[in-house]
Amino acid sequence: MTTLSKDAPPLDDLAAQLPPGVLLREADAVEKYRRDWTRSEAAGMPVAVVRAETAEHVQTAVRWAAAHAVPIVPRGAGSGLSGGSCSVDGCLVVSTERMRTIEIDVPTRTAVVLPGALNVEVKRAAAEHGLWYPPDPSSFEICSIGGNVATNAGGLCCVKYGVTTDYVLGLDVVLADGSLVRLGGPRIKDVAGLSLLKLFVGSEGTLGIVTRAVLRLVPAQPPVATLVATFATVEAAAASVVAIGASTRASMMELMDQASVNAVEDHLPMGLDRSAGALLIAQSDSPGAARTAEIELMQRECEAHGATECFVTDDPQEGEMFAAARRAAFPAIERRGALMLEDVGVPVPLLPELLTGIAAIAERLDVEIPTVAHAGDGNTHPIIVYPRGDEAARERAAAAFAEVMHLAIGLGGTITGEHGIGRLKRDALPLQLGDDVMALTHRIKAALDPQGILNPGAGF
Amino acid sequence: MTTLSKDAPPLDDLAAQLPPGVLLREADAVEKYRRDWTRSEAAGMPVAVVRAETAEHVQTAVRWAAAHAVPIVPRGAGSGLSGGSCSVDGCLVVSTERMRTIEIDVPTRTAVVLPGALNVEVKRAAAEHGLWYPPDPSSFEICSIGGNVATNAGGLCCVKYGVTTDYVLGLDVVLADGSLVRLGGPRIKDVAGLSLLKLFVGSEGTLGIVTRAVLRLVPAQPPVATLVATFATVEAAAASVVAIGASTRASMMELMDQASVNAVEDHLPMGLDRSAGALLIAQSDSPGAARTAEIELMQRECEAHGATECFVTDDPQEGEMFAAARRAAFPAIERRGALMLEDVGVPVPLLPELLTGIAAIAERLDVEIPTVAHAGDGNTHPIIVYPRGDEAARERAAAAFAEVMHLAIGLGGTITGEHGIGRLKRDALPLQLGDDVMALTHRIKAALDPQGILNPGAGF
Repeated sequence: MTTLSKDAPPLDDLAAQLPPGVLLREADAVEKYRRDWTRSEAAGMPVAVVRAETAEHVQTAVRWAAAHAVPIVPRGAGSGLSGGSCSVDGCLVVSTERMRTIEIDVPTRTAVVLPGALNVEVKRAAAEHGLWYPPDPSSFEICSIGGNVATNAGGLCCVKYGVTTDYVLGLDVVLADGSLVRLGGPRIKDVAGLSLLKLFVGSEGTLGIVTRAVLRLVPAQPPVATLVATFATVEAAAASVVAIGASTRASMMELMDQASVNAVEDHLPMGLDRSAGALLIAQSDSPGAARTAEIELMQRECEAHGATECFVTDDPQEGEMFAAARRAAFPAIERRGALMLEDVGVPVPLLPELLTGIAAIAERLDVEIPTVAHAGDGNTHPIIVYPRGDEAARERAAAAFAEVMHLAIGLGGTITGEHGIGRLKRDALPLQLGDDVMALTHRIKAALDPQGILNPGAGF
Repeated sequence: MTTLSKDAPPLDDLAAQLPPGVLLREADAVEKYRRDWTRSEAAGMPVAVVRAETAEHVQTAVRWAAAHAVPIVPRGAGSGLSGGSCSVDGCLVVSTERMRTIEIDVPTRTAVVLPGALNVEVKRAAAEHGLWYPPDPSSFEICSIGGNVATNAGGLCCVKYGVTTDYVLGLDVVLADGSLVRLGGPRIKDVAGLSLLKLFVGSEGTLGIVTRAVLRLVPAQPPVATLVATFATVEAAAASVVAIGASTRASMMELMDQASVNAVEDHLPMGLDRSAGALLIAQSDSPGAARTAEIELMQRECEAHGATECFVTDDPQEGEMFAAARRAAFPAIERRGALMLEDVGVPVPLLPELLTGIAAIAERLDVEIPTVAHAGDGNTHPIIVYPRGDEAARERAAAAFAEVMHLAIGLGGTITGEHGIGRLKRDALPLQLGDDVMALTHRIKAALDPQGILNPGAGF
């Protein structure tokens, strides 16, 4: 859709409209903004980076880009896992990393947050007032709210508390023409007009750039109790998840397979059972005695489905150690080689079939695919590992990456539960959505960004 | 946007494409489909009604209407409170009242529901399997899921459990050209592509007609405990709501002012305190002993904010009597005269100001405005009552209707929290959203319905 300008765009004009230090043009400085966590080799070279300090800087950048048909790649903390903020050649990167103000409004129980603020910073600011911002991607210590909104990020507690979109009450968005619209506000219920707010959440920077978010906060989470159950197979663990979900709303329900347990133990030894086929880490945050009752119920279901060992703790810090072990899976596995990270989801009862199918793909294509999962949501992260620099292995990994997505689609699932399509999963998207939904998507894109300058090549 | 065809559309052509009994053309029969619960006198006269039995019937109707530039007014159970399914002259009403199948899928904890199924029917079908569909508009016994999706309906429990959009996992939608797209599915987390699903929820039939919904179910609600607190003033009751919300997630937090208490007592005597300035009806559904602790905490906050009496019950049926009294407010007040029903919301801490402002408008314009509220969400229903047939009073009521909306907007609120804009609130919408958001809305409408045949005059 984008017609790239063939001439070098007039960066001096842009520089003149911004305060010193906002526009980066030096190759060394720009290089640092080329890639997100995927470290994609396909990333192009930006012409410059705008490190916006205000919404006005974003507007200035977008107006300039629109005038000169320069593609824009919006960027938060650069922790994306699907290549959504990897650059394209000749683009202007618009980074919101410097826009980090957080204001907690206790009476309305909202946080008014600029997009560069980290998720953990919002959580901490809320906690100072006895409040809680639930969404908790595993990367919560390094990912930004802007990126969370762009991908509709999930996390561990969303099995009970929902995902980012459930907490976004308002957004300021800079549109493709540089105008700024304010959607929603600190109102819990509001159905006036189309649900534009919800359309922008998860749009991966393709419809606008978020410059401010009003986030819903809730009272602090009660203390959690934790169950760690050991199984001989991932299938038995997954069956337990289905059974537990029928009667109980766990506040966490995570699964680690044997390979991911061993990778974490290598990296961060904490005595996890290396011989287990799978671990289930479940939590309850129900108040008072109900917490114990729920954990006991979960334990009974696990034992009924073949758990070989169950460990229970009421100590929140001990429970957090296990959650941290689960979150450590990405960095731990990354030490084993280059990664291709999946984010496939299926209807929860099909988890066993998905996990069995993934194992079969790994064996057939001779790649390692350790898998962790937000099992209670049916959302899994198979992590395809291959030796760095081994081109044949890389090709097998790429084949496995596609096959795992096709497997999920075949099971009525999705190729991305929480990371977004980015630039890595676009090929598989039409297979999931169908040509009609793709066409509908493109009609909306054309209506909002007729030049196609916003994050071209990402999202769909 | 719509150019109405000046010639009579060829209804025989449409009749020939549908089974007998699906197309209604007789004036008497059509008359019954002219209006929703608003009974608007401004409603136009349809040319015919399609009582679709299948998605294919809806597609046939839309294709025919598109070919002949006939406006379509989609209709569920006709219980809308904003005129969204009131007819326009020359329209084709597409009713989904006959599409009522409900299938509960226990393993995925979803309900696959055709749009004419009533909310209460979904709840009952889920309950047979120990599951729960939370959204509970006061009209849950007579409103349809299609209408709930079209308005993103709320209800009493959404203060803890969220609104319709939070439970919609998938939709089949017939678009303005008669094509059918399937969005989402029985997957808890799915961020593949734009959030089109969320865009259709709350679009009031202006972007497409829902022909099937996949709804998320959760484990059955635990038993509730109920607190009924009496206050001298609505302001004191509202202040209690704000204080309680800072620490507790009530599963219901409803407010009734003196006039609505008295209207309900006249209609359905149950011993409510007629002298009270306001009643607060709060519930907790926390499990076990935590329920009692939460109710006690709420009681302490109410007493600290001036409650003159507190009644507590652990008996769910007794609690439901109070909830039913609250839900009876509309029909009870309707017996007092003609109504204009508001649905304004504000940030929760501004509830006292909103309620004080409404009382001032009532006094100045010499109209009665009994008010009930989903107070925990800041969503209120001021109900403007005037004597039927009194034109001067009707004009004062209309002035009050506009002033209450302007008051809410001035407090940073919304003109509709859960009923939708329909045809009654369109004048005030630009004041709330601003011209830029209205323009964005119209761009999306034009992209999806270029002829403007879907529910023209409704929604925005």
